[in-house]
Amino acid sequence: MGKQTVALKNPPSITAGACVVGKKEGDGPLKDSFDYIGEDSFFGMRTWEMAESEMQKTALREALRKAELTPSALNYIFAGDLLSQCIGSAFGMREMGIPFFGLYGACSTMAEGLALAAMTIDGGFADNAAAVTSSHFCSAERQFRFPLEYGGQRTPTSQWTVTGAGAAILSGMGVAPYVTHVTAGKLVDAGVKDANNMGAAMAPAAFDTLTAHFTDTGRAHDYYDLILTGDLGELGGDILLDLFAREGVDIKSRYNDCGRMIYPRDTADSNSGASGCGCSAAVLMGHVLRGMRAGKWNNVLFAATGALMSTTSSQQGESIPSICTAVSISNMR
Amino acid sequence: MGKQTVALKNPPSITAGACVVGKKEGDGPLKDSFDYIGEDSFFGMRTWEMAESEMQKTALREALRKAELTPSALNYIFAGDLLSQCIGSAFGMREMGIPFFGLYGACSTMAEGLALAAMTIDGGFADNAAAVTSSHFCSAERQFRFPLEYGGQRTPTSQWTVTGAGAAILSGMGVAPYVTHVTAGKLVDAGVKDANNMGAAMAPAAFDTLTAHFTDTGRAHDYYDLILTGDLGELGGDILLDLFAREGVDIKSRYNDCGRMIYPRDTADSNSGASGCGCSAAVLMGHVLRGMRAGKWNNVLFAATGALMSTTSSQQGESIPSICTAVSISNMR
Repeated sequence: MGKQTVALKNPPSITAGACVVGKKEGDGPLKDSFDYIGEDSFFGMRTWEMAESEMQKTALREALRKAELTPSALNYIFAGDLLSQCIGSAFGMREMGIPFFGLYGACSTMAEGLALAAMTIDGGFADNAAAVTSSHFCSAERQFRFPLEYGGQRTPTSQWTVTGAGAAILSGMGVAPYVTHVTAGKLVDAGVKDANNMGAAMAPAAFDTLTAHFTDTGRAHDYYDLILTGDLGELGGDILLDLFAREGVDIKSRYNDCGRMIYPRDTADSNSGASGCGCSAAVLMGHVLRGMRAGKWNNVLFAATGALMSTTSSQQGESIPSICTAVSISNMR
Repeated sequence: MGKQTVALKNPPSITAGACVVGKKEGDGPLKDSFDYIGEDSFFGMRTWEMAESEMQKTALREALRKAELTPSALNYIFAGDLLSQCIGSAFGMREMGIPFFGLYGACSTMAEGLALAAMTIDGGFADNAAAVTSSHFCSAERQFRFPLEYGGQRTPTSQWTVTGAGAAILSGMGVAPYVTHVTAGKLVDAGVKDANNMGAAMAPAAFDTLTAHFTDTGRAHDYYDLILTGDLGELGGDILLDLFAREGVDIKSRYNDCGRMIYPRDTADSNSGASGCGCSAAVLMGHVLRGMRAGKWNNVLFAATGALMSTTSSQQGESIPSICTAVSISNMR
């Protein structure tokens, strides 16, 4: 195996997954795959930030219920989110009483969490571990862009932050699917400075990690039934297809992006599609996990991407360092 | 071993460490232990945020130089910092070309990075891995408190954010000291709401993790030559001693806190001592690592603490979830 990819000796099971989304997501094409759809943006809480934490908590509890495990059966939680100082995760997980590793991978967090949870189990450090993440349209807008009340206009390349959370429970023993490989990504900065065009900033990182994965494993792209990025959106996904096409590789028939799946396409609001840690987490833990269990796909390469800028770095004129972490998920061990 | 603590089968070596600090830190009692002391707060960069990234880069390069490794010899970097969206790390590490896992553990980040680097090496996923973190007084002040130009007053319980960075290189093979145990911490929220009293918020988390470590390992506190928290400061450290005293355990003779070590004590500015991811990182990678190599201490329990609030959560009246991750570092394998 090449240095960026590790093959897990005893691939851990994704023994259960759960996802929670908001109303807009629950009205979309994947509505039947979500475990819980909120009636408003508050999930019973006072603030949008606490609503985001509540979604994480609900997702983890539902995943634990499905796995028939108590919180104390988890050795570790790996969690992160988009909010400054990752308060979505710290407040969401604070009552769980489970050893906690905080992550920051922006929208790549679900893959980062799955990677580290799988490695700690396969390394013999844990029997069970969880990967949890979330995003919330309202908390993200006011942090990264404008107060919602301002009614700011959106550019055509902008992506709509998903209100949603996902939780995965990984176990050394358990049913398919399994996490078989982890390809950790390098930081890639293509020089894109437009924080409203994250897809363009992140596509080169996705290309870099996917290329490393194919090289390291010796697998061609068509080994996979589904190569799933999250979340490059419409524009970023097209850039990724172009980058592969330049190398003479056509991944189009196997390719999709979580940011293209969760909302109806070509609606006015969603512009270039969806984004947010909760997007790929909810799509993977809902639609994709259900599809794998049903045998619709047997080999999925989940390559989640993150744009690692902040409002401060953008205001200072800096470009956007990006990352893509990939995990190979298979029904065969 | 209990569920919170893992003993590493082949304890990885801290093969090299390096630290970079600012002028104020370089004038303090640990001045001879730092690898590089900046002449001003900019480290040759345009902004304080980019200065923070530059410190990370310098620390990692110096650690690699000492380890006689090229960047490509590292399988993973685990890095994080205090800045929103962890831009200190993303921009600091973006040119390194090393697979990257972003962390958010606030001031516990160095221990979190050491824990995960050690586990990925011991688990057979990496030959070499780095843990890197930083903080910068000026970038932290304007993000968490007030613009420096405002000249805000500080409360007696407040801690002074260290301008500094530390990098550790861990390897499967290498010289002493070694990371022998990892105790991952649970989130603990003692209900403290004062963001200028982080020591009080974090002390119960330190007590929780240290107690778990002693229980899990069967070691009494006096097994260790040094129990080192980072950074509870003056007040938080006293609270921790009190919490142990209530259990009839006096850890005082073995105890110190990185936040008490880096500045002269009882000066007007530093109030309750130092804090910031860079504080415990620079103290551990400088003073403590040098002391262990010289045989001054043979068994050190490094328990770094993080206060996981943001300005948003504090403004919304929330309390401060805290965490402490502990790693046992020994000259004996």
